[in-house]
Amino acid sequence: MTMINRQLRLKTRPEGLVRRDDFELQEQAVPELKNGQCLVRVLYLSMDPTNRVWMSDIPQYMPPVAIGEVMRALGLGRVVASKSAHYAEGDLVQGLLGWQDYAVIDDRRRQDYVTLPSNLSVPLPTLLGACGFSGITAYYGLTDIAPVQPGETLVVSAAAGSVGSIAGQIGKLRGARVVGIAGGADKCRHLVDDLGFDAAVDYKADDWKQSLAEATPDGVHVNFENVGGPVMRAVLSRMVNGGRVALCGLIANYTSTNRPGDDYSIVIVKRLSVRGFLAFDYQDTAKAIQDLIGWVTSGRIKAEETIEHGLENAPLVLNKLFEGSHRGKLLLRVAKEA
Amino acid sequence: MTMINRQLRLKTRPEGLVRRDDFELQEQAVPELKNGQCLVRVLYLSMDPTNRVWMSDIPQYMPPVAIGEVMRALGLGRVVASKSAHYAEGDLVQGLLGWQDYAVIDDRRRQDYVTLPSNLSVPLPTLLGACGFSGITAYYGLTDIAPVQPGETLVVSAAAGSVGSIAGQIGKLRGARVVGIAGGADKCRHLVDDLGFDAAVDYKADDWKQSLAEATPDGVHVNFENVGGPVMRAVLSRMVNGGRVALCGLIANYTSTNRPGDDYSIVIVKRLSVRGFLAFDYQDTAKAIQDLIGWVTSGRIKAEETIEHGLENAPLVLNKLFEGSHRGKLLLRVAKEA
Repeated sequence: MTMINRQLRLKTRPEGLVRRDDFELQEQAVPELKNGQCLVRVLYLSMDPTNRVWMSDIPQYMPPVAIGEVMRALGLGRVVASKSAHYAEGDLVQGLLGWQDYAVIDDRRRQDYVTLPSNLSVPLPTLLGACGFSGITAYYGLTDIAPVQPGETLVVSAAAGSVGSIAGQIGKLRGARVVGIAGGADKCRHLVDDLGFDAAVDYKADDWKQSLAEATPDGVHVNFENVGGPVMRAVLSRMVNGGRVALCGLIANYTSTNRPGDDYSIVIVKRLSVRGFLAFDYQDTAKAIQDLIGWVTSGRIKAEETIEHGLENAPLVLNKLFEGSHRGKLLLRVAKEA
Repeated sequence: MTMINRQLRLKTRPEGLVRRDDFELQEQAVPELKNGQCLVRVLYLSMDPTNRVWMSDIPQYMPPVAIGEVMRALGLGRVVASKSAHYAEGDLVQGLLGWQDYAVIDDRRRQDYVTLPSNLSVPLPTLLGACGFSGITAYYGLTDIAPVQPGETLVVSAAAGSVGSIAGQIGKLRGARVVGIAGGADKCRHLVDDLGFDAAVDYKADDWKQSLAEATPDGVHVNFENVGGPVMRAVLSRMVNGGRVALCGLIANYTSTNRPGDDYSIVIVKRLSVRGFLAFDYQDTAKAIQDLIGWVTSGRIKAEETIEHGLENAPLVLNKLFEGSHRGKLLLRVAKEA
C-alpha cells in the first residue's frame, strides 16, 4: 500500500500575516527508506514565531526556507518504520519535522532530533510545549542567560504565550517577583490567578505604562523579552542600573516590514546587559527537559496548550501567534494515534 | 583683590548642533570659601559627547543640566586656595569642574574628584585625555565589559577620537586584530601608520561596507561601539555568533531629534551580548590610570590631543565632536599656568 505524504511547500514569501496561498499543498508517495533512515509520522507541529522569520529572507540564524521547500517546523512524531540503527519503530522523536504528514530522518542529521522516553508522565502536547523547546527556551533564559535571583523583579513580555508563561513560572520557582505583560484582561487575570504571577499588565489598556510602573516599584532587574517595539522600550525604561535582558524574541517585528525604531541609548544610560540567545544552541538539553517534566508532573508549573487541527490549516493557525488570540503553547494536531 | 569667575550657564536646550546663544556668559566674584571647601583654577576642560546629552532632557544617566545652571563638564585644575583638610594649595585635581574659570569643591563631594600626583611624567592635556576618563573608558571597555582576547578581531568605531584611539591601541596590546572606523582618508591612514591598527575603514567612502567586510575576514568578535546608527548596524552584521559589544557611546544620535531606527533582531540572530557601560561607575580607577600612564610613558600607546582656547568658545568647540573635525582628545584650554 502506497502511503501518501501531504506537504506544505513555500510558494511566496508572506508580507505581514501569512496567507494560505503563500503555500502549496502537495501530495506525494512516502519515499522508500534507505539504510540509515527512518520514517516518522508527524503527530503535532509546534507553531512558533520563528516560523514566520524562516519564511522571510531577512537576516536570521538559519538559512531561510527556500521557495519550493517544505516549511520548516518543530514537531513531535512517532517512528513508524526504520532502517536505522538509532531509531526503532515506536520511538517518540522531537525535532525539525516540517509541515508534512511524514518526515524521513537520516542518521547523519540525528543531532537535530531528540528521542524521548516512552513512559513519560506528561501528555504529548505538553512534551512539545512546556517540556519542549518553549520550556527549554524559558529555562536557559532564566538560568544561563539572565539568571534571576530571589527578591529580584522579573518582567516577562508575551507572558501568556508558550515561552513567557513558563518563564514567569520559573521566575516564581527561583524566588523572584514576577510581572507579566499580555494583551487583554482575561489573559492578565489568568497569569495572576492561575499561574501565580505577582502582577500582570495589559498592554492593550490605555494606562498600561502607568500600570507597569506601579507593578515594578523597585524597578526591573531582569527582562525576559519576547516582543520588542514599544513593550520592550517601556520595560527597559523601568530597569535598574545594571539590569539584564534575556532577549528571546521580537514578535512585534516579525510581521512588520516597517521596523519600529528601537534605540540602544537606554542600554548605556542604564548600563544594561542585553543577551540574545537561541535554545537550539544548547546541545545537551536532557537536564532541562528532566527538570521541566518534574515541575509539570508535581504541579509546580502549569502547562497549557491551544490545539488546532489539520495540516492544511497550518498557515492560518500560525497567524494566531501574531493576533494574540491563543493562550499557552499553540500546536497543530496533524494525526491522532490510534 | 576680588577675583572674577566667568561661567557659561545653560540658557536654552540646543537642537542639533550647539549655538553660542544657548549659553549665557556671566561674570561674578569668586565666592568666599567656607570651611571644608577649596578653590580650583580650571586649566583644561574635557570636551565630550556626553556634554551634549547633559544639555538635553532626554533620558540620561545623570540629571540633565538645569536651565540657568553652569554647564557640567570634566576638567583638570589646580587648587589655588583651600579651607579643606583634603586639598592643599598646588594640588592637581580632575573631575566635574564645569564651564567656568574657577570651581569650588566641597569636601562632601570629594568622591567626584581625583587628586593626581604632581610628579607625573605625562603633560597635563594627556592626563585629561589618554590617561583621564577617555582612556579609562577604553580601558574598562576592553578589560571588563568585553575583554578582547589574542587573535580575536576587534572593531572600534570613531576610532580616531579620544576613546576610540586608545581602545584600538589597547586592543593591539592585548593581541587582537584591530580594525578602526573613522571619517576620511587622512584619519584612516593615521590609524594604520601612526597608531598601529591592522586596518581602517573610511565610513565616508562609498564602498565602506565592502571595505569593512574585507577587513574582517574572520568576522568580528568584539565591537567597541562609540557611534551607533548605520555604522553600528554594519559592524553588528559582521559579528560572529556569540560576539560581544562594549556599548560606550552613540554619538550619531546625540544631535539628532529623529533617531535612527535601530533594530535588536541581530542581537538574537547572532546571539550577541551587548553591554552598556560608563567609566563613572568604576570607583577605584588608580590601577587603570597607572597602567595608562605607564603605556603612554613607554610609548606603547600614543596619546594625541586637539587643544582649543578660550572658555567663551566652549559651545562651538564642542560641535567639533559631531563634525568629526578633530583628532584624539578634544580639549579646551581655559588658563595657562605661569
